[in-house]
Amino acid sequence: MIEAKTIADNIAKKLRRASRPVVCNVSNRHVHIKEEDFKTLFGHSYVMRKLKSLMQPGEFASKELLEIAGPRGSIKKVRILGPFRKYTQVEISRTDCFKLGVSAPVRESGKISGSAPVKLLGPAGEIELKEGCVVAVRHIHMTPADALELELKDAEIVRIEISGKRGGILGDTLVRVSPKYVLECHIDTDEANAFDFKSGGWIYVV
Amino acid sequence: MIEAKTIADNIAKKLRRASRPVVCNVSNRHVHIKEEDFKTLFGHSYVMRKLKSLMQPGEFASKELLEIAGPRGSIKKVRILGPFRKYTQVEISRTDCFKLGVSAPVRESGKISGSAPVKLLGPAGEIELKEGCVVAVRHIHMTPADALELELKDAEIVRIEISGKRGGILGDTLVRVSPKYVLECHIDTDEANAFDFKSGGWIYVV
Repeated sequence: MIEAKTIADNIAKKLRRASRPVVCNVSNRHVHIKEEDFKTLFGHSYVMRKLKSLMQPGEFASKELLEIAGPRGSIKKVRILGPFRKYTQVEISRTDCFKLGVSAPVRESGKISGSAPVKLLGPAGEIELKEGCVVAVRHIHMTPADALELELKDAEIVRIEISGKRGGILGDTLVRVSPKYVLECHIDTDEANAFDFKSGGWIYVV
Repeated sequence: MIEAKTIADNIAKKLRRASRPVVCNVSNRHVHIKEEDFKTLFGHSYVMRKLKSLMQPGEFASKELLEIAGPRGSIKKVRILGPFRKYTQVEISRTDCFKLGVSAPVRESGKISGSAPVKLLGPAGEIELKEGCVVAVRHIHMTPADALELELKDAEIVRIEISGKRGGILGDTLVRVSPKYVLECHIDTDEANAFDFKSGGWIYVV
């Protein structure tokens, strides 16, 4: 039996969250790369060039593009995001998976063990990744202060509401808390297109 | 002030619906066509061939494929669904819109007035449609008996719950009631891919 106070507390929490919009940006397919792989693909003396800063501190879109290839097809002009990471990771949508013929698992960024193989083709070389291709789980970056305000914990799974003429709720959204982050939700192009959602719009934790 | 009885009635309705799963199939991009356009594209004496029946009575996937083209790109091998209709209508996903460079509105099937232009290329000819390209609104076909059981009316807009590891709720889902239909929900490939949903799975009206 759920007590009336529990129900009232939950409703009150929902109402508090409903007054806290979270900006949401749409992640197109992209590649995070380790320096060694970058040199193989672009040449030993090639330097990664910044195109524009992203919202998360220190992160940026580079000018460098790769082709990614799977057994069924390939996708050209996939952007590399900087700075270098300790591992190379390819983030694609489920739609991209069908095009490439790749069965990428839905994963949190960085958790690439046992993820899908994919081939990277750069102007100076190619790499056969044995693993590293994932569909990024939808997630919200936030600081510990944001988490306190939204009454959330790191690694919590929440639902987010997307309004608009083709709105709805995305479940299974991961909360990621770090003092290095700023408050920002990331969904991929499939999720955005299903809701006709555009980068810079607001979502609500529900 | 909402009365306790109203809340209780709504919860009871939700619980009744929660015991009524609805089969859901994923619509890939496709073309409905009028006979005159079909003859232009395939030749005057060409006969549409049935590949397989679809769930809605009388509807079928044909063996015939078209290329659809917009200002930015084209998509080959788009299937024609039969039988002939009184109008030609192209149903694509938002992802397809970006590929083609077409701004198709979200519409109910048949409501093509003022919808997007698109070009159709067949083996025997081409057609420049001035309108007819839409993103189909997610919808549920049902009989009047189903509507009674689910406590829904024709043209009602509902939310549907999709379970699974990447689940959620799609809002703005259109109810379509006709004695010619059978109970079946249709979502497009963007919606399916956002939730990792596969044809033949169940959804619930919530």
